[in-house]
Amino acid sequence: MAKARARQAALTKPAGSLGRLEEIALFMAEWQGTGRPRAERVKAALFAGNHGVAARGVSAFPIEVTAQMVANFQAGGAAINALANDCGAELSVVPLELDRPTGDIATEPAMSEAECLSALNAGAAQVTGDIDLLFVGEMGIGNTTPAAALCAQAFGGDAAAWCGRGTGVDDAGVVRKVAAVSAALALHRPHCASPFDVLRRLGGREIAAMAGAILAARMHRVPVLLDGFICCAAIAPLAAARPAFTDHCLAGHCSAEAGHARLLAHLGLEPLLKLDMRLGEGSGAAVAVHLVRAALATHNQMATFGEAAVAGAQ
Amino acid sequence: MAKARARQAALTKPAGSLGRLEEIALFMAEWQGTGRPRAERVKAALFAGNHGVAARGVSAFPIEVTAQMVANFQAGGAAINALANDCGAELSVVPLELDRPTGDIATEPAMSEAECLSALNAGAAQVTGDIDLLFVGEMGIGNTTPAAALCAQAFGGDAAAWCGRGTGVDDAGVVRKVAAVSAALALHRPHCASPFDVLRRLGGREIAAMAGAILAARMHRVPVLLDGFICCAAIAPLAAARPAFTDHCLAGHCSAEAGHARLLAHLGLEPLLKLDMRLGEGSGAAVAVHLVRAALATHNQMATFGEAAVAGAQ
Repeated sequence: MAKARARQAALTKPAGSLGRLEEIALFMAEWQGTGRPRAERVKAALFAGNHGVAARGVSAFPIEVTAQMVANFQAGGAAINALANDCGAELSVVPLELDRPTGDIATEPAMSEAECLSALNAGAAQVTGDIDLLFVGEMGIGNTTPAAALCAQAFGGDAAAWCGRGTGVDDAGVVRKVAAVSAALALHRPHCASPFDVLRRLGGREIAAMAGAILAARMHRVPVLLDGFICCAAIAPLAAARPAFTDHCLAGHCSAEAGHARLLAHLGLEPLLKLDMRLGEGSGAAVAVHLVRAALATHNQMATFGEAAVAGAQ
Repeated sequence: MAKARARQAALTKPAGSLGRLEEIALFMAEWQGTGRPRAERVKAALFAGNHGVAARGVSAFPIEVTAQMVANFQAGGAAINALANDCGAELSVVPLELDRPTGDIATEPAMSEAECLSALNAGAAQVTGDIDLLFVGEMGIGNTTPAAALCAQAFGGDAAAWCGRGTGVDDAGVVRKVAAVSAALALHRPHCASPFDVLRRLGGREIAAMAGAILAARMHRVPVLLDGFICCAAIAPLAAARPAFTDHCLAGHCSAEAGHARLLAHLGLEPLLKLDMRLGEGSGAAVAVHLVRAALATHNQMATFGEAAVAGAQ
């Protein structure tokens, strides 16, 4: 980190003039433990799950679309395929028991302890220490509903404050969503003593898998680019309990989904991009990978004032 | 454009969920006149010039740095070299009579008519119809001073409203800069009947060259990614006279230089990135090239709902 900072100060540019690119380079140096960080091996882990609460009509799309989109990911036809390819990320698609939706959070826990542990482990299994940068994504019809419940439980605020339109549900759908989240909070709040309890009662398999992957990245000191609302909601219970948990994460973007800007503020993260994206799949993080690469290109390739014989500031 | 719009509506994602990436794809389709736009040949034209007004102590760096940085560009050691390489742009470096600074705008016109025409032509000469996307950049110690003068003349407001710290000048430097811009405006305002007059009296060679390149791009229907404050100031006189002039331009980023956000508002452009960059050289536009590529990757590579057998919204 000290080496990286000294190098930044010597490069042929006015001090600070690369703005957040300089900050990204130092962040990568810190987590990789080197003055010359890199983003050659970028891993994208995409998790899919189905949700009992989807039966309440909280999404614009039918639940079958989760499996259909998994087939689309596997065939290479989705946005994340194009974007992972575009940013040079290695994409893994991990469907999690799609034929067995989680419990309906409005009336029961989403997962048993064993199910939640299994999903956390499925996420962690995607992460190894030889990855330079990780991002995670999700697909799960209805999953902005558990995400809203996780945020409300972790950071407070009523259900309506965290419920947006997701993939584009209408006003009546938003009303059903708020009702489902309110019921879930009333039912589970007395039993949410630990982040694990919150995650298993209000989350979902793909959500727990993202949390597991981001946790594993921390143990391996692999830096993480966060994606949108659901990805960030996955770590809300952990971050609420331990704010330093997000130190190894950059916020890739701010989604157009209503609660994401508020959630990022609670997480203490400033998003790199704000492009009104709201697709999930890791799509916003995939675009942000380019900013990390650009930051490291300048950090590693530029000449210093001494090397280039350029005069410094007067 | 109609073909591109129909394709966007059929791709396997909720309508509008790629936000500004969709907008970029349609913009590229419109200017390239095809339903399947591309960003394979990206050209970066980097112009350098020296400024008589620099002798007034308006910059943190000595005037020799312009030529030293041109040598750095030619040797491949500057930020724009790393960033152009990173985004796959073909970089041309065009120094414009560095040993002959423009006139000091506080006391005389920056350029004669012939000099300004020559600089406009030098810019236009960099643009050909086979380019998929153009961006321009600049290097010129002291050039935020003429840029501020151009903005004040084009869009009104007093000198102080447009004068920032540039590469990092101190408070006394900003005071000298405001004084120089105020003097320039008082001297030249009565003679600024046309955009050309404004550009030649208050601009500079690299500034006029950028304007010439962006003009030539319009004639060739080549879309342009604008860079920071000075790049945008170069087209301020033209855009003030004809607001539709910026239709073939996207704002690559919003610089940390004080006047840029205000200038973008006057130009009616919403920046793609806001990363607190303030380096010039085309550096912000170079990073934004990745957003154009990401937009076109999704537009061109994604499957449609029909192709992937994914159900649409309910």
